[in-house]
Amino acid sequence: MKHKAICLISGGIDSCVATFIALEKGYQIYALSFNYGQLHDRELDSAKKIAEAAETKRHIIFDINLQLFGGSSLLDRSLVMPKNREMKDISSEGIPSTYVPARNTVFLSIALAYAESIDADAIFIGANAIDYSGYPDCRPEYIRAYQSMADLATRRGVEGRPIRIEAPLLYMTKADIIKSGIRLGAPLEKTWSCYKGGEKACGRCDSCIIRLKGFKEAGVDDPIKYEYYPDWYKK
Amino acid sequence: MKHKAICLISGGIDSCVATFIALEKGYQIYALSFNYGQLHDRELDSAKKIAEAAETKRHIIFDINLQLFGGSSLLDRSLVMPKNREMKDISSEGIPSTYVPARNTVFLSIALAYAESIDADAIFIGANAIDYSGYPDCRPEYIRAYQSMADLATRRGVEGRPIRIEAPLLYMTKADIIKSGIRLGAPLEKTWSCYKGGEKACGRCDSCIIRLKGFKEAGVDDPIKYEYYPDWYKK
Repeated sequence: MKHKAICLISGGIDSCVATFIALEKGYQIYALSFNYGQLHDRELDSAKKIAEAAETKRHIIFDINLQLFGGSSLLDRSLVMPKNREMKDISSEGIPSTYVPARNTVFLSIALAYAESIDADAIFIGANAIDYSGYPDCRPEYIRAYQSMADLATRRGVEGRPIRIEAPLLYMTKADIIKSGIRLGAPLEKTWSCYKGGEKACGRCDSCIIRLKGFKEAGVDDPIKYEYYPDWYKK
Repeated sequence: MKHKAICLISGGIDSCVATFIALEKGYQIYALSFNYGQLHDRELDSAKKIAEAAETKRHIIFDINLQLFGGSSLLDRSLVMPKNREMKDISSEGIPSTYVPARNTVFLSIALAYAESIDADAIFIGANAIDYSGYPDCRPEYIRAYQSMADLATRRGVEGRPIRIEAPLLYMTKADIIKSGIRLGAPLEKTWSCYKGGEKACGRCDSCIIRLKGFKEAGVDDPIKYEYYPDWYKK
């Protein structure tokens, strides 16, 4: 019987590639996505398509209303989201307004409950510390601290069979993530990264800019459509 | 302006007393309870009454369907809950069937998101390592590891103003918790500990037995009514 892994699938490129890495390692995939008060459903639609492509055993879309607390421009229309920024401005800003307080901690904790309930060996998360957007909960030291806490939190930890937190993209560039995804047959054309919803990605928000830069550096065309392409991408 | 604290209120004695300790320390209380698929609503009714008594600024009852994952007799009627056990059998069992996988981790993580969203300084949890029921996520080493993780997970942690996880009952006996509650004017008569719902507590489940033993040792009558009282309590 195959070992089980929970894969956190947001609908973006990183979690899609992390899921296909788990598949390649031979795990039976249990997909977990969150309906947490995002401003649009576009990324959950992508999450469903990615989960189908990965032939997951089950895909749970878990309702959790983080909007109740506020505090992020991803959840609150009254906060302004930056756009048309240069990469150097994105990476030097510190923690941006799109940061959702404790989001990865909440998602990993619910994944931990799921993993322990079905006796899964691992949780895969697409956290990335290189081409990341300044979120504290994407750093290697955070993932390590989460693992230490999880080992003490769970029955499996007490029994000496800890549930492993796997963040296989932690030290990869966006370009390398994209190349790995292509090698593994991950459906990048089904992913969604834009902070806005709609038919086409905006090409102006930080998430679109980081994504387009990754495809540019990987030397591959991004298979999804954009309303707008930055000049440096077209060259 | 008063400093803010999130108080996790389950409806039981421990979280009630922890909340009144936060009040005594001068915090403005933001209460947080969870509707997580418990088999009865009785403890949430108690949580509401306790939050009112503590004059909380706001009381959020957060919906989170942990029942979706199963794995605990507190959530699943098909698993059998132990009853009429001796204290020595309760404390020597290891992790009991009432353990809900990663429950404190999930609750603390949602509290962490709430705390960071409203800029609260502390989260109070009634975790107790002495007269506890064998749950891994009630141990001091777990609370310490959670704090380390939270310091790395949050914007406040990065800024050097970490959100403190306060577990003031960690090393107290149930009798001392009850005596502290009485001293602080905590409404113990409004608390509910029994794993079953109904008008009266059952007096037979592990939680009733631990509670009754605490009152017995504190030399105080338990103000709530029971269907059944163990012989040792009546003596």
